[in-house]
Amino acid sequence: MERLDQQFAFLREIDREKKIVRQTYLADGSRKEGDAEHAWHLAIMTLLLSEYANEEIDVLKTVSMVLIHDLVEIDAGDTYAYDAAGAQTQRERELKAAERIFGLLPEDQGKKMRMLWDEFEGRETPEAKFARTMDCVQPTMLNDASKGKSWLEHGVHLGQVLGRNARTAEGSEVLWDYARTHFVEPHVGKELKAD
Amino acid sequence: MERLDQQFAFLREIDREKKIVRQTYLADGSRKEGDAEHAWHLAIMTLLLSEYANEEIDVLKTVSMVLIHDLVEIDAGDTYAYDAAGAQTQRERELKAAERIFGLLPEDQGKKMRMLWDEFEGRETPEAKFARTMDCVQPTMLNDASKGKSWLEHGVHLGQVLGRNARTAEGSEVLWDYARTHFVEPHVGKELKAD
Repeated sequence: MERLDQQFAFLREIDREKKIVRQTYLADGSRKEGDAEHAWHLAIMTLLLSEYANEEIDVLKTVSMVLIHDLVEIDAGDTYAYDAAGAQTQRERELKAAERIFGLLPEDQGKKMRMLWDEFEGRETPEAKFARTMDCVQPTMLNDASKGKSWLEHGVHLGQVLGRNARTAEGSEVLWDYARTHFVEPHVGKELKAD
Repeated sequence: MERLDQQFAFLREIDREKKIVRQTYLADGSRKEGDAEHAWHLAIMTLLLSEYANEEIDVLKTVSMVLIHDLVEIDAGDTYAYDAAGAQTQRERELKAAERIFGLLPEDQGKKMRMLWDEFEGRETPEAKFARTMDCVQPTMLNDASKGKSWLEHGVHLGQVLGRNARTAEGSEVLWDYARTHFVEPHVGKELKAD
């Protein structure tokens, strides 16, 4: 039963991801989104939008990646996309978290999950690139739906959004093009400061 | 762009699942769990526990199933596992919801998602049985971790839990056996009324 004990210890531990709050608002603007909800949304997006990937992707692998990509935030916290100071220590905090959290699993599964997370971070494989595209497009969709509330609160500039998304098209040209023209550009000068 | 418009209309609409609150508490008992968080948790459980399925399962199909299994609650609301009155109208409410919500997607994807949901509801294939096992085991894990808080609040009896889980072993004997002995039975007479 030791293997099952380890698996359930991990499954109980990751429950804490539900309490990590992101800076993005739900579509209706009523409250901020939680990390687990965000990951769930990316997983369904991956199922439905994989047809637009620049390169063919393994859908199960990509879904697995987006499901676990934020687990490190249980220890490291959420670093807002436009928080430059936080970004400097983010990598170190997240590496330590990955060590501890994936270390709760039986060795074979811990290694597998850790490799998936490393692959996501590395952003080199078709799956990692597409997972990143999901991770970047989803908040633009929610920011648009919630009338740019999060951008407004943080005084975000168009240049910052475009900078943050400089590589989003690597996973899917089609999807980043759609997000840029439908979710980002309409807000310039209203909620999103033009540069 | 019509296809993408439909896909994003669906993806925006399902954001509402995040606001549906279940009766189960988070592991730390601090608040009740949301539907999208629950689905996320089941998806990761499926990735890690598929090795215990009674019959071999297609993991991507099962993960897809658990990710979308509660979307109908956007219209139909959450029906608590031990709410007998709610259960009587549940099926009708959920069928109507499935029609509307999956109908937002491009036809091919709407049909595919609807078939997945029907399969989950039908509980006959190895994937549907395993998805149900996840759906039933996860709240017992959280109820145990939160000291039976939800069972206590609703005055739930052991007989009700065992009745509710009469078919949980169909997806995995091993996992239901573990859940029963580790998450359910220790609470009898404390938070869970013995019959």
